[in-house]
Amino acid sequence: MERILCAEALRRGGAAVEVAGWVHRVRNLGGIVFIILRDSSGFIQLVSDAEFKLNLESVISARGKLSDNAKAPGGREIVLQEYEVLSEAEPNLPIAVNQDPELLGLETILDNRMISVRNPKLLSIFRLQAACIKAFGDFFRGEGFTEIKSSKIIGGGSEGGTNLFPIDYFGKTAYLAQSPQLYKQAMVASGLERVFEIGHAYRAEKHETPRHINEYVSLDIEMGFIDSEKPLMEIERDFMAYLFESIAKDNQSDLRAWNVTVPSPDSCARIPIITHEEARDIVKTETTTRAIDINPEAERILCDWADRERGIPMVFINEFPRRKRPFYTYPVGRKTMSFDLLFRGLEITTGGRRINDYSMLKDALAKFGMVESELGSYIDIFRYGCPPHGGFAIGLERITQKILNLANVKEATLFPRDRGRISP
Amino acid sequence: MERILCAEALRRGGAAVEVAGWVHRVRNLGGIVFIILRDSSGFIQLVSDAEFKLNLESVISARGKLSDNAKAPGGREIVLQEYEVLSEAEPNLPIAVNQDPELLGLETILDNRMISVRNPKLLSIFRLQAACIKAFGDFFRGEGFTEIKSSKIIGGGSEGGTNLFPIDYFGKTAYLAQSPQLYKQAMVASGLERVFEIGHAYRAEKHETPRHINEYVSLDIEMGFIDSEKPLMEIERDFMAYLFESIAKDNQSDLRAWNVTVPSPDSCARIPIITHEEARDIVKTETTTRAIDINPEAERILCDWADRERGIPMVFINEFPRRKRPFYTYPVGRKTMSFDLLFRGLEITTGGRRINDYSMLKDALAKFGMVESELGSYIDIFRYGCPPHGGFAIGLERITQKILNLANVKEATLFPRDRGRISP
Repeated sequence: MERILCAEALRRGGAAVEVAGWVHRVRNLGGIVFIILRDSSGFIQLVSDAEFKLNLESVISARGKLSDNAKAPGGREIVLQEYEVLSEAEPNLPIAVNQDPELLGLETILDNRMISVRNPKLLSIFRLQAACIKAFGDFFRGEGFTEIKSSKIIGGGSEGGTNLFPIDYFGKTAYLAQSPQLYKQAMVASGLERVFEIGHAYRAEKHETPRHINEYVSLDIEMGFIDSEKPLMEIERDFMAYLFESIAKDNQSDLRAWNVTVPSPDSCARIPIITHEEARDIVKTETTTRAIDINPEAERILCDWADRERGIPMVFINEFPRRKRPFYTYPVGRKTMSFDLLFRGLEITTGGRRINDYSMLKDALAKFGMVESELGSYIDIFRYGCPPHGGFAIGLERITQKILNLANVKEATLFPRDRGRISP
Repeated sequence: MERILCAEALRRGGAAVEVAGWVHRVRNLGGIVFIILRDSSGFIQLVSDAEFKLNLESVISARGKLSDNAKAPGGREIVLQEYEVLSEAEPNLPIAVNQDPELLGLETILDNRMISVRNPKLLSIFRLQAACIKAFGDFFRGEGFTEIKSSKIIGGGSEGGTNLFPIDYFGKTAYLAQSPQLYKQAMVASGLERVFEIGHAYRAEKHETPRHINEYVSLDIEMGFIDSEKPLMEIERDFMAYLFESIAKDNQSDLRAWNVTVPSPDSCARIPIITHEEARDIVKTETTTRAIDINPEAERILCDWADRERGIPMVFINEFPRRKRPFYTYPVGRKTMSFDLLFRGLEITTGGRRINDYSMLKDALAKFGMVESELGSYIDIFRYGCPPHGGFAIGLERITQKILNLANVKEATLFPRDRGRISP
């Protein structure tokens, strides 16, 4: 007999079936044993009047006949005929898999990630995350973007050279890339014009906040032949609508596990675009504390404001002052053609038009106290014909976190890296 | 007027159009100037009787009327009315973009990657590579696999601890991951059952060969509830058929650029499966040199043999001896449930069933001179219920290389890293 998934077994008639999975829960009611079996598709109840003992999380295969039982999950159960232990779990689990993960606390969850990720509610985070990756690729491919894979080992920094992790590279010092910035610009200039990359990025920042991790997955795009940040905000708005639509369609059970909903795709057309100056004014009006900067508190205030005014907790902020953006940002006087996107109180995107003119770039390097040689042969991108262009990056873990309303970005990271954590 | 791509302009009627792109070639025929303009969609000829000078690779936008010209690429040209230089290239390019890249040599191509990648033939490699990534994700998602993103910063080695690049991680030593091996196993055991990852892998090997790079993209899968390597070879065979079909459909111009074809999808059903012992016997029969091992020469011989016998230059080799495989490979006596896939003379995949039983794993660690503590909390995967499972990895650059018949895997890597190269 061939194994079928629990979800399929629940759909079948009264036939004999074989299922396999993890022993999620066992209840022994004096002569009758109820076992909840878990697999990738969900759960099914097994029932038996034989005596036996199974450890939680043991992997078994089980054969039996389906029978209706209104009290069982899915309204059916399997009357056990025979079973086989494929892998026996030790009797004392390091943490409970079948309980509410809220009881565990984040550090315990992460210390025991190999087992805690089996908790269905915690695992649903990563199904949702996979859906975000798929939606990103599908959407941007549909818009004529080509996927690239750039190196994460670099000779120097692409954003000013701070906060880099050094690598011992055959006796020389190399660094982990902070972003694919110059590579994606090179690939716009290569003639591909529109590129995206899904890859790791590394920041050796000593932050210990609910919004920072030192290794994250960056969903990057870069596109040519645009002359301001406006088309970037438009395409990101359209992507957000596409993402919410995909998730609402395919990931209802993950959303239900966290008791959340996504904004309606239509509401994305109403995401306000405000300037950095306007954002500061709104924060000033909404709070008595003085807003010196768009800090985390201000990000929450602005998303609440957008939700109240436009019915969507997202807001684009553009025209950031030059001193707040990297050297390669396209300047307009003391401002720049740049933007952030905030979602549910968190910055999930930074982007903007880039400088594509060589002499303008030389001025910018000087202004930022950098020298041309720091960019090495990357500078060739700009010396030999580079169209006007720009791009942005979405933090995969941050967008996952905010869709599910998780308190900490590390919850949305399978194996997070922070100052103290390099395993598991 | 809105800019359209060259390919679209060629399809349009005699209307006025605006195009934009790179100046690929200029011919000045005494009073008439012909410009070949290049963009992401291809080429179009511009013609003008005005005097002007344009540097190669300058980015321009141009407006004019379409006119038939049988001698122009695509059978049409634009009679130039006006143009604007969006980004002027310096007059002396470091290398020629519009010539046969064979004239340049690999080192020159890589040293000047920022510009050499603009060569349409070289750029086609990365369009083809993007198609491989897409096909991999689409196929395995269709087979019920969930995409994961695991950390590339690890506390210790997952395959025995050699050939690792050390990172200075906030004053502690961490390493770049050689593979997502234990992470993907954990995610099979998480209940996802079937997972894939597209991510970088790092090997600090001092090889200087046409088949090695120190950073590569690994297309990894891992699946539960299998009890030998056979289902792995079957699903990889089906993937190869899907990949060849996709590429034949969508990437004809890239294949033409390199004058190659892909095997027919149907022929994948005929990929032979031979044991490691049989492979050695075939090599012995086919050559006079003694085959001590399946070395690069033997890999070429075996693919030639398969092509002659079955009409496809691919072969699965299974039942590798235990001493040739990592500790986690599932043993059967002195052999293992493992396999390689060779394609056009190169190993593009290594895979196999893994040990899922804790006590068998302890024995294996002892046999390989390792201790349990080296695995840290990864060992929990096996202590607390882990279904029988296995997986494999395809080297993205290698499969790209072999599809296009490139001499060196570095040609199929945008920004390759080898012992001497950490930039651009």
